[in-house]
Amino acid sequence: MIPVDPRYLPPSAMEVPRFAGIATTMRLPLRNVADPQGAEIGILGVPWDGGTTNRPGARHGPRALRDLSTMIRMVNQATRAAPFHTARIADFGDATVNLTDVGQTMTLVEDQFSALRTAGVTPLMMGGDHLLSLPALRAMAKDGALGFVHFDAHTDLFDSYFGGMRLTHGTPFRRAVEEGLIDPQRMIQIGIRGTTADGSDRAFAAAQGIRIITIEEFRQRSLADVMAEVRTRVGSRPTYLSFDIDGIDPAFAPGTGTPEIGGFTPFEAQCMIRALDGLDIVAADLVEVAPPFDATGMTAWIGVSIMFEILCVTANAVARRAGRKPVICEDIPDPGV
Amino acid sequence: MIPVDPRYLPPSAMEVPRFAGIATTMRLPLRNVADPQGAEIGILGVPWDGGTTNRPGARHGPRALRDLSTMIRMVNQATRAAPFHTARIADFGDATVNLTDVGQTMTLVEDQFSALRTAGVTPLMMGGDHLLSLPALRAMAKDGALGFVHFDAHTDLFDSYFGGMRLTHGTPFRRAVEEGLIDPQRMIQIGIRGTTADGSDRAFAAAQGIRIITIEEFRQRSLADVMAEVRTRVGSRPTYLSFDIDGIDPAFAPGTGTPEIGGFTPFEAQCMIRALDGLDIVAADLVEVAPPFDATGMTAWIGVSIMFEILCVTANAVARRAGRKPVICEDIPDPGV
Amino acid sequence: MIPVDPRYLPPSAMEVPRFAGIATTMRLPLRNVADPQGAEIGILGVPWDGGTTNRPGARHGPRALRDLSTMIRMVNQATRAAPFHTARIADFGDATVNLTDVGQTMTLVEDQFSALRTAGVTPLMMGGDHLLSLPALRAMAKDGALGFVHFDAHTDLFDSYFGGMRLTHGTPFRRAVEEGLIDPQRMIQIGIRGTTADGSDRAFAAAQGIRIITIEEFRQRSLADVMAEVRTRVGSRPTYLSFDIDGIDPAFAPGTGTPEIGGFTPFEAQCMIRALDGLDIVAADLVEVAPPFDATGMTAWIGVSIMFEILCVTANAVARRAGRKPVICEDIPDPGV
Amino acid sequence: MIPVDPRYLPPSAMEVPRFAGIATTMRLPLRNVADPQGAEIGILGVPWDGGTTNRPGARHGPRALRDLSTMIRMVNQATRAAPFHTARIADFGDATVNLTDVGQTMTLVEDQFSALRTAGVTPLMMGGDHLLSLPALRAMAKDGALGFVHFDAHTDLFDSYFGGMRLTHGTPFRRAVEEGLIDPQRMIQIGIRGTTADGSDRAFAAAQGIRIITIEEFRQRSLADVMAEVRTRVGSRPTYLSFDIDGIDPAFAPGTGTPEIGGFTPFEAQCMIRALDGLDIVAADLVEVAPPFDATGMTAWIGVSIMFEILCVTANAVARRAGRKPVICEDIPDPGV
Amino acid sequence: MIPVDPRYLPPSAMEVPRFAGIATTMRLPLRNVADPQGAEIGILGVPWDGGTTNRPGARHGPRALRDLSTMIRMVNQATRAAPFHTARIADFGDATVNLTDVGQTMTLVEDQFSALRTAGVTPLMMGGDHLLSLPALRAMAKDGALGFVHFDAHTDLFDSYFGGMRLTHGTPFRRAVEEGLIDPQRMIQIGIRGTTADGSDRAFAAAQGIRIITIEEFRQRSLADVMAEVRTRVGSRPTYLSFDIDGIDPAFAPGTGTPEIGGFTPFEAQCMIRALDGLDIVAADLVEVAPPFDATGMTAWIGVSIMFEILCVTANAVARRAGRKPVICEDIPDPGV
Amino acid sequence: MIPVDPRYLPPSAMEVPRFAGIATTMRLPLRNVADPQGAEIGILGVPWDGGTTNRPGARHGPRALRDLSTMIRMVNQATRAAPFHTARIADFGDATVNLTDVGQTMTLVEDQFSALRTAGVTPLMMGGDHLLSLPALRAMAKDGALGFVHFDAHTDLFDSYFGGMRLTHGTPFRRAVEEGLIDPQRMIQIGIRGTTADGSDRAFAAAQGIRIITIEEFRQRSLADVMAEVRTRVGSRPTYLSFDIDGIDPAFAPGTGTPEIGGFTPFEAQCMIRALDGLDIVAADLVEVAPPFDATGMTAWIGVSIMFEILCVTANAVARRAGRKPVICEDIPDPGV
Repeated sequence: MIPVDPRYLPPSAMEVPRFAGIATTMRLPLRNVADPQGAEIGILGVPWDGGTTNRPGARHGPRALRDLSTMIRMVNQATRAAPFHTARIADFGDATVNLTDVGQTMTLVEDQFSALRTAGVTPLMMGGDHLLSLPALRAMAKDGALGFVHFDAHTDLFDSYFGGMRLTHGTPFRRAVEEGLIDPQRMIQIGIRGTTADGSDRAFAAAQGIRIITIEEFRQRSLADVMAEVRTRVGSRPTYLSFDIDGIDPAFAPGTGTPEIGGFTPFEAQCMIRALDGLDIVAADLVEVAPPFDATGMTAWIGVSIMFEILCVTANAVARRAGRKPVICEDIPDPGV
Repeated sequence: MIPVDPRYLPPSAMEVPRFAGIATTMRLPLRNVADPQGAEIGILGVPWDGGTTNRPGARHGPRALRDLSTMIRMVNQATRAAPFHTARIADFGDATVNLTDVGQTMTLVEDQFSALRTAGVTPLMMGGDHLLSLPALRAMAKDGALGFVHFDAHTDLFDSYFGGMRLTHGTPFRRAVEEGLIDPQRMIQIGIRGTTADGSDRAFAAAQGIRIITIEEFRQRSLADVMAEVRTRVGSRPTYLSFDIDGIDPAFAPGTGTPEIGGFTPFEAQCMIRALDGLDIVAADLVEVAPPFDATGMTAWIGVSIMFEILCVTANAVARRAGRKPVICEDIPDPGV
Repeated sequence: MIPVDPRYLPPSAMEVPRFAGIATTMRLPLRNVADPQGAEIGILGVPWDGGTTNRPGARHGPRALRDLSTMIRMVNQATRAAPFHTARIADFGDATVNLTDVGQTMTLVEDQFSALRTAGVTPLMMGGDHLLSLPALRAMAKDGALGFVHFDAHTDLFDSYFGGMRLTHGTPFRRAVEEGLIDPQRMIQIGIRGTTADGSDRAFAAAQGIRIITIEEFRQRSLADVMAEVRTRVGSRPTYLSFDIDGIDPAFAPGTGTPEIGGFTPFEAQCMIRALDGLDIVAADLVEVAPPFDATGMTAWIGVSIMFEILCVTANAVARRAGRKPVICEDIPDPGV
Repeated sequence: MIPVDPRYLPPSAMEVPRFAGIATTMRLPLRNVADPQGAEIGILGVPWDGGTTNRPGARHGPRALRDLSTMIRMVNQATRAAPFHTARIADFGDATVNLTDVGQTMTLVEDQFSALRTAGVTPLMMGGDHLLSLPALRAMAKDGALGFVHFDAHTDLFDSYFGGMRLTHGTPFRRAVEEGLIDPQRMIQIGIRGTTADGSDRAFAAAQGIRIITIEEFRQRSLADVMAEVRTRVGSRPTYLSFDIDGIDPAFAPGTGTPEIGGFTPFEAQCMIRALDGLDIVAADLVEVAPPFDATGMTAWIGVSIMFEILCVTANAVARRAGRKPVICEDIPDPGV
Repeated sequence: MIPVDPRYLPPSAMEVPRFAGIATTMRLPLRNVADPQGAEIGILGVPWDGGTTNRPGARHGPRALRDLSTMIRMVNQATRAAPFHTARIADFGDATVNLTDVGQTMTLVEDQFSALRTAGVTPLMMGGDHLLSLPALRAMAKDGALGFVHFDAHTDLFDSYFGGMRLTHGTPFRRAVEEGLIDPQRMIQIGIRGTTADGSDRAFAAAQGIRIITIEEFRQRSLADVMAEVRTRVGSRPTYLSFDIDGIDPAFAPGTGTPEIGGFTPFEAQCMIRALDGLDIVAADLVEVAPPFDATGMTAWIGVSIMFEILCVTANAVARRAGRKPVICEDIPDPGV
Repeated sequence: MIPVDPRYLPPSAMEVPRFAGIATTMRLPLRNVADPQGAEIGILGVPWDGGTTNRPGARHGPRALRDLSTMIRMVNQATRAAPFHTARIADFGDATVNLTDVGQTMTLVEDQFSALRTAGVTPLMMGGDHLLSLPALRAMAKDGALGFVHFDAHTDLFDSYFGGMRLTHGTPFRRAVEEGLIDPQRMIQIGIRGTTADGSDRAFAAAQGIRIITIEEFRQRSLADVMAEVRTRVGSRPTYLSFDIDGIDPAFAPGTGTPEIGGFTPFEAQCMIRALDGLDIVAADLVEVAPPFDATGMTAWIGVSIMFEILCVTANAVARRAGRKPVICEDIPDPGV
């Protein structure tokens, strides 16, 4: 028997239409960062795109993701995972940010992630642009550098833009490695492609020992083989998972600021996340959904579908850390109609 | 000094960006129909379009209206009204409906409006299609027929569709008059236009004494003159205000199921609602926003802008009923930055 | 009692949903140019835009107009006109054209209009670009120059484009005047505006005695005054009515190739057409709807709404020519539900 | 020599532009259910979405499918099939439905399919939502349970929604199995994926012996292997083919009410249908195209492209039943220009 | 005879299609801020929106404005003005900005406007967001405070946002008045409307003597009357003209970050700018076009149409300052075809 | 050390935002066909679609491609190629065309390509429709028939349309083979699919020895295997490369006039072009991007991404012909920030 707290279960899509009601993430309960007790996983929106060097709009990501997220139902048909039964998951609303002050936003976001971490809540960030992973990492790596699994079209390992700006969405992971937040030996980037300004990011990666799997290498190997390497590289210690929606091919996910053709299919993304089950995920993010460029809403829908997969493997990690067994569909008594 | 309850004030747009946070209507507090105490005006979404005879989608209206509504700020520059300081307004989420059962939905919606009415909460419904005004009227007219101010391209006074279907969005006000919910002598329809199937609605209106102001008559008179007639006709007794978004010209508001060219401008709509200040409004609705046909979101934005005007005059009515003076911008101490 | 031929009546919107069924124009019967007998007014699509000098797409106009046209119902609420009861109106499908041969298309279109004219069918053309008015005029002016009422943002009176091309959508009415198809003394253009390449069109108009009413003059006078001038100018003799959708402001009607801001509202267009009732209209057209630029479909909807007004006044002209009295809504026995 | 009836051949795209003319399905002749003689395959639109539990709009499917269908040409380059030469195919327009009465619509649709069946016309339904397969099955299975090949993201095998509604687009095939219309041993579902409310559909399938191939299983096997299993399972007896457009990945086909990421590519869909050649297809449908969510029209284009493949294999089945040999491109004398 | 420099004349739309060629503004010659000699009016794009407090995207304004601007032709039909013959106008490309550094951008933009001013080039800025008017004013008011004609939905007179940010697009004119760049007695704002956070902007305006004409006052007076007041207020001394596209109603111009319903029509905007002919305009801007929200491109088209009107009156001012007579259409010898 | 001419290097995306500045192709220098000296590769837009038999709009292709092209950066991450360092590449603007005269356009375009060829500039054409390859071939094949690598959904090998029109976008390569511009033994078409009017194109191909690889054959072989055949077939002699964007699947690239489902992914297109490195490419084109059907701009983005790949292999060919070694990323000294 599973001791599920019914306050953390969304309504069934077979009872309440999925477009009805206030749009919290996946229709989960709404909580506040100032009072996080009880939740085990906290979804925190960060509506900010002040680090963007090209087309803006990721500030509107959390709103659009929440809108589409209410189409998510209870269980994962492919893996049978029942994340809302496995861990107590809540929507913590949107972080406080300062739209026109990068530095203050870095501090504000770090503080809010620290509050969740202190309360034992595993965070899943909805961006916002990719610079926001930096304050999240600053909060989550307080006990030591983390492993880092990174799905993206871009390395985000450049030093600076526009004559010395060191805090942009093209630089967060250079900063994170420099600050010791990520262990470069436990860092792996998958899906890198497109044109580039120069080779300085690759040179940094090579010097630090960061592993880069380009989309071309990915397509020449099997997905299973690549993901085995990922698991081996990050190992069993605490790991941060970061998914930039521009890792997905822009035919599927046009709603992002810097699209690059030739990316992952959504199905591949689902399979890759599922292959991370078993890792000790301590934080994750899904970033760079830019709704003004998402005419059909399908980018947000892919985003929340990936978030759901992330929640499945993160809930399992939470359960394992708590000594519980993950719940699957078949464990749920009396399935509804 | 005004005794404002700060729990009913939305955050300032100058402190929290308007796209941030969970999208409740105008960023008001979220309440529940089962526990309505404290609120004086309750906004209730009804995500249902089962009465639609043409293009569907109004079921998605409440979601889209809430999304755009967070761009609304604190006070009305034109009238100086400060509705959130004048009355305690809350978002009551979405009503429970049955997507595929018209009859049960009629009962469910009526019950939820009755619950608000019993608790002394003046309701503002966000549709959904126009048939939903019927259960709202059934709940609100329990003490006698109401006056009815109706902005629309269509009379909605037909008898039935499709071989006898008497509950569609083309028939609610015929039913309401037949059931004694609306006093036809205190009923007025403004903006009627377009092609029509036949003259049976006009014949019914003529027989009952319902006043119809076509868009052609409206354009030949001044807006002030028309609205003076409206005020005279409905008088000082309790009145229901219903605004079908298709009253607005479809260049401004394409996102609706049955557009008719040649309608009101949004500015005219604003002026007409403002001219209702002083009426004893006991319930209101804004219906027929169909987001799938609203490519730019501007229909929803017009919808919430009209809802804001309705809230201004309704809050004033609530204050008068409570013996309070309406609050205006200049009454608010210490305006923020 | 009115002797209406039921084969020419579209189904009621209250019996058959307006989106159901094959999309003939206004759900009228489908006839063939080769066998036009019986019909009094023939709607003929011409899916061709080979005269376009700027953005193409008007070739798709007839398809989009037919799609939206099925939202039209039986009678005109503003004028009470019942065009489908007043005259036998049919959809004659699309004219045969040659997409890549201007000259052959001119001949083909003229021949098809001649066939209708010979059979006593008054044509209403759905464009296609505005050059197509030229072959229509060649067919219809066989007995002498026609009066010409022209709503448009542009005069279309230039001599040639691109180094001598004399058949483009910027030149048809210069050709028509040169060929004696239009009587310049009975020609009037309303709504002219925007930037222009030079003053040669105005010089031609001045030399020929063509009357041009710019949008600025239109806005300084009343619509009634302008239309009185129109009626006086064209008088009671046979007249061709041409409506270029770009006469309408592009906020209302973005779906056209050469938009100019500051145009008519659709309501003004409706009123202007209604003011033509009583003229001896022998042919008409609605041109330049370019669906690829019509994201919401509202341009096509305005187009068919204007076509409906044109049909109302044209059916009345047909009835008068046949010695019949126009039918209005109140004449129709037993209005349906 | 092939005895082709020229009345059943659409015009060549090389003679008449594909956007010209009245939009019947694939520019086929228009026939009436009341007088079906002569046709061997009948395409029947059903503009109804009253069974939809999420986003509506499939009622507009037939209109959009007909619009895009006129881009289809004469023969299938991949298989060389010439379906319009192989069988006499006609468009039977749209079925009569009742928009707001589920029960009456079930009866009306069943009756119209029965009329086609009685006349020996093999039907291809264009939806409309997936509940409509139920009345089609009721008509077509009068002589015994049919085999059923089902492409979809969802099983549609649930018992009821919203507190007991047993007729929704999530329940038709549970009803069909319960009513003995489908032989569960000859039923196979391909493409199932996404989140789900619970496991009750799978439990029903397991109990009945229905075969479900999830998208994950599909991707681990070859398409040829999967389709061999399909052919083996349904065998040579009469079979119904049902294609829900949401089987296709929503990047390709966003225009549907309940998209699930990770679906078929259109190329896979084409190959799968081609692999059904040789089965005894007695009826088919293509459902759930919801044009309001189809910004580019590509969903409808995929829909009609799949319908064309279905017509190719169905025409071959018709020909075999009539003792004729299927016609291929090379059999057609005097290829046009 | 007019001594026109042919290098400053765009190609005729009757010779080169308007969609052909590199998109410089209105197909004018491309010049560089570093070498401005010869030009009299310089159009300078500023692709930056770092001052935006709500929906971003104005950084993409210059690109979209240039794209649509190539539909502009040679002369103004309404006023007969021939701006490209009256003054030597050039496109100076886009200003150098720093996307993520507000302070540096203020300096960079000011310097570039100063360079134009020093060379005697009258600038017309294409925004970008409205904060950019501040550095432009800093450059242009070096000889004393300027008159200021301001069309907008918002006063942009607030003190700060987000806890003290004094440089946002809601604050530039408070700064400009504080810094003595604008003479408040010669400042007038037209079109103000919508909801507002508080009354602090109005209090500042009242204290400074800034004149605000709300849209409500505008609609109660004639346009001519309002514009007479504008001319009287700013008088004959040097004046800056600023047009925020959100002054226009969002049905016409949805492509902006903070739309407010009930605004100007584009025709009113044209008439208002024309009424400024005779003022001593020394600089102007058109700001806040946000292409990601401009689905049809019509916002950009309105923007460039307004820019053309601004160029007409600014060219006349330049000519007067140079002792030349403005050129009109009729002055141009040998009108082209 | 590489002797790179800095005038031919676009600005770095890390210094100048990619949306800033005048949109020349990939931000390359702008040159003129009348003065081509110095450039080695010339990109020439041809804004013309007068050969289109179905949906128009390719005339707007060059504008849209230039807009998106500014997102391209300096080097190719997959191949390490640095095309802008390898050869001097310039944008030659748009060719002069005559919108309404096919014959004159054929001559004009041929002449402009001849001018580039005479100056030793290798051309890359941006269409425009596919008929434009014919005048390009006429210019480039003056020394003998060329090899021809052709990516497309259609063979474009038909004889004529619409009763004898021999110059349409469905016929250019039949003309080119007839005129001896292409060596059919060195011609290969890849990606052919969809429905077809008849088999006459295949019969012509078979008779001439043209190799056609359908999409079905392509999917049954490996990409490497197909491309090996391509290289073998065209050999080391001069070759023209033509890429019709409709070769790409329309889910990825909806913005084209005649989409066919089941096409290439953009990643496959990238890989196929890369596999052409080493061929002696003397001219290339990318055609049929029709922006009016490209709601998200992703078709143009795919188009320019493919153009970048074409530039990489063409620059290498140019370098080899000039006896230089292609430059790669690692050759570039002092990589920027």
